[in-house]
Amino acid sequence: MSLPGRAASPSASLLLGTSRRPLSTAPSASAAPSGPIRGRLTTASMNQAVVGAAYAVRGELVMKADQYQRVLADPAQRDTLPFKEIIYCNIGNPQQLQQKPITFFRQVLSCMEYPALLDHPAAAQIYPQDVLQRARHLLANFSGGTGAYSHSKGERIVREHVAGFLQKRDGYAAEPEDIYLSDGASGSVSKALNILIHSRRDGVMIPIPQYPLYSATIPLLGGTQLNYYLDEENSWGLQVSELESLVEDAHKKNVNPRALVIINPGNPTGQCLAESNMQEVIDFCRRRGIVLLADETNAYTKPWLSFKKVLRDMGPKYKDVELISFHSVSKGVIGECGHRGGFMELVGIDEEVKQQFYKLASISLCPNLPGQVVVDLMVRPPVAGEPSYDLYHQETTGIFESLKRRALRLTEAFNKLEGVTCNEAEGAMYLFPRVRLPAKAVHEAVKQKKTPDSFYCLALLDQTGICVVPGSGFGQKDGTYHFRTTFLPPEDKIDAVAKSIAKFHHDFMQKYRD
Amino acid sequence: MSLPGRAASPSASLLLGTSRRPLSTAPSASAAPSGPIRGRLTTASMNQAVVGAAYAVRGELVMKADQYQRVLADPAQRDTLPFKEIIYCNIGNPQQLQQKPITFFRQVLSCMEYPALLDHPAAAQIYPQDVLQRARHLLANFSGGTGAYSHSKGERIVREHVAGFLQKRDGYAAEPEDIYLSDGASGSVSKALNILIHSRRDGVMIPIPQYPLYSATIPLLGGTQLNYYLDEENSWGLQVSELESLVEDAHKKNVNPRALVIINPGNPTGQCLAESNMQEVIDFCRRRGIVLLADETNAYTKPWLSFKKVLRDMGPKYKDVELISFHSVSKGVIGECGHRGGFMELVGIDEEVKQQFYKLASISLCPNLPGQVVVDLMVRPPVAGEPSYDLYHQETTGIFESLKRRALRLTEAFNKLEGVTCNEAEGAMYLFPRVRLPAKAVHEAVKQKKTPDSFYCLALLDQTGICVVPGSGFGQKDGTYHFRTTFLPPEDKIDAVAKSIAKFHHDFMQKYRD
Repeated sequence: MSLPGRAASPSASLLLGTSRRPLSTAPSASAAPSGPIRGRLTTASMNQAVVGAAYAVRGELVMKADQYQRVLADPAQRDTLPFKEIIYCNIGNPQQLQQKPITFFRQVLSCMEYPALLDHPAAAQIYPQDVLQRARHLLANFSGGTGAYSHSKGERIVREHVAGFLQKRDGYAAEPEDIYLSDGASGSVSKALNILIHSRRDGVMIPIPQYPLYSATIPLLGGTQLNYYLDEENSWGLQVSELESLVEDAHKKNVNPRALVIINPGNPTGQCLAESNMQEVIDFCRRRGIVLLADETNAYTKPWLSFKKVLRDMGPKYKDVELISFHSVSKGVIGECGHRGGFMELVGIDEEVKQQFYKLASISLCPNLPGQVVVDLMVRPPVAGEPSYDLYHQETTGIFESLKRRALRLTEAFNKLEGVTCNEAEGAMYLFPRVRLPAKAVHEAVKQKKTPDSFYCLALLDQTGICVVPGSGFGQKDGTYHFRTTFLPPEDKIDAVAKSIAKFHHDFMQKYRD
Repeated sequence: MSLPGRAASPSASLLLGTSRRPLSTAPSASAAPSGPIRGRLTTASMNQAVVGAAYAVRGELVMKADQYQRVLADPAQRDTLPFKEIIYCNIGNPQQLQQKPITFFRQVLSCMEYPALLDHPAAAQIYPQDVLQRARHLLANFSGGTGAYSHSKGERIVREHVAGFLQKRDGYAAEPEDIYLSDGASGSVSKALNILIHSRRDGVMIPIPQYPLYSATIPLLGGTQLNYYLDEENSWGLQVSELESLVEDAHKKNVNPRALVIINPGNPTGQCLAESNMQEVIDFCRRRGIVLLADETNAYTKPWLSFKKVLRDMGPKYKDVELISFHSVSKGVIGECGHRGGFMELVGIDEEVKQQFYKLASISLCPNLPGQVVVDLMVRPPVAGEPSYDLYHQETTGIFESLKRRALRLTEAFNKLEGVTCNEAEGAMYLFPRVRLPAKAVHEAVKQKKTPDSFYCLALLDQTGICVVPGSGFGQKDGTYHFRTTFLPPEDKIDAVAKSIAKFHHDFMQKYRD
């Protein structure tokens, strides 16, 4: 994200390096204002941890795309642009790109929002019987419908259903009291990191590339981000030996690695971990006393294994491993991003620490109730024999198959471009192609004070209206350049998107050829 | 909130005083773990800022109430208790206590959740025409219905409507780009505090008593809480001279007061500030370079003035005063707590700082969409002549009048009790009676390691099933004892509640009479 304040204000740039709260002994503390400030709140005088945090998914590129959107909406200006629409591939937001919501979900929500409907004679003409039943059952068990605060962990009945779902998925017991619902998975992730991070001595290991929620939140909380690199040459695989040396390095710097983030399926990379790899990770966490944060929000593919199942399969030696697993209603076939539903399961976490999770949840009162309803529906979809089952099955299968086709089509298209390679997506809804940029393009980018990948992505937006995110927003090995794109544009547009990118890429390479 | 971890773990109690992140020079830093820890995450090894934060509204009392609730649900145990139901007066949660949602709001939500309804022939039998129109209009202007992420500040159309509402309310321009929607007001408050607080040198002035969101969040962010006391003898009024001396004291401690929180109408006290008092506060903020955080979430009474209006009325000399105003859909006649809708308006805030607010909002993606819809409906209710107007008017007036009656009835009842005084509520939905406890009761409380007000409230719960919050959760002058209760129980129960409290209080006083 570009920070317009930095260049303009000399004292702000003085503090630019402070991406964390200043440490006791850090010399940078002397740059912080020491006496009372009389004057306005500025980027120099505000919390420098916020100023230092970066969040790329909605940064400079998206703001420019939004500007173009406004130009396109104005008939007088519209023709000044070389494209007719903005295609937002920067964010996994399926319903913005016309993915239809699951009918059953929305029918239940519709009844729950207006309970008088349940007694209306016309309701039976509109809603199948199982929809009405489901809404009645949830309403009867909620503390006050969708309009009342629930328990801070979420309505007990939803947590019971989530526990049942996890139990069925993994074959091992799950406790409703260990389930914490949240506004999206982000709400859970930031709570877990808040529990774990006290000062810069607390390190959190995150994959590079990663979903930038982690790299933004860790410095906000004053912790230290510890990077481990995924291996692009080996389908973005994970080497446990790299984790080991990262821990050793951290100890030398007096940083204590508290947690290991694994995103599985990967975001932005889309890869799924092999079971043996997961076992190694779990063993590493046990040996090192590190809490495993499993971001499983993108799990909608099969075969896919949860960390909970792999952990429990490993037997009693591993029973005390600490695992927090994150889930969301936003991704894949459900794609209910706007409802901000999510949850985490605490596994092997100390009872007193759980009380602290509860207290933290209670400070923000409770997650939104419609989001809780969507979580409930996600874990208890219609089953064969119920009136809504056929349509539900048809809709979810249709979306899933279409996502697979679109991923494949874009991957193939990318791999045909000069200097571009792209691993196949095994899950999630992202591709992360690598682009080998000519030295002349890199030079031009530096001249314009942009990272080379941002320079490429901005040019793509300017030419085609397609909005993607530069790899630098997720992290990438030095000297490599990537971008993340979703494969969510509707199926009838995906070929046009591929063609449009191909033409842009060809022209770009011609222009900057060494 | 009781922290079970403290007593049990000796190292946890060592760190008990650390209610903030350790400071550079603070000796307590030596108590923090210095080397790598091999072992489990415990209340001793986790973030001590979380351990130190207190949040009373959902603390020990509520957990006990929940236990009783489970006992009451069990036919075999039910008769062991001296009451037949739990009455939750601990939290402003109207719909949990049977306040009916506004029909128009829920009808629009119902249609937006299931847009296919809009084309269904039976829809016109169920929904008035203006409901269908409203849902169509919002859907046409949303980026992807209720299921897609919106702009991180919230859907532009909702922000335009909020700006129009503020403009009409205050008679001064409001900009959609200065409106930030959030999950409840809490989401906005914590963002603003996060922007303002960098270290313990940053002070935030809060009223005592106050809503504990503030006292919980300030230490979580590592800032310093600066208390100013409201004057119970003068209807919980505010003395600007006290603010001045608080600033001087803070400077002596090398703490820079960054912001002043004013809750108006007050929570828990329910008072409304006079215009002249508001002008003094604004002048104070201008002179001292302090950001005014106006928590106006409880504003549903009239006459009531917003800080924005009073500020603008004061003319150009005050145009640069920095004001952040918080609003919510949770309180008063609307009472849509579960939808977690809210917003803040940034007034006089530096442009670059606004960009940082946007970035912070973007890290958690966007507020939930149904909550945004409720905000929209709150600021654009049906108007005279529209099909839904009469019912809307009848419902809101009915709730409002009933709240007034219930507040009055409880206030009168409290003022009749021995040693109890209670100011009238001018807004909000809370009362904060003061209880003069006999020395014997205080002594017994200390013996049981409870604060005297908690001891009283626990006894009230044990005897009557009525759940209130001890004054110590909100702060109170030393040696005074209060509790906060909502006046939300349904009208046909309020007399029984008053009677039940009166009987309990009489018995309690008899038992502990000096």
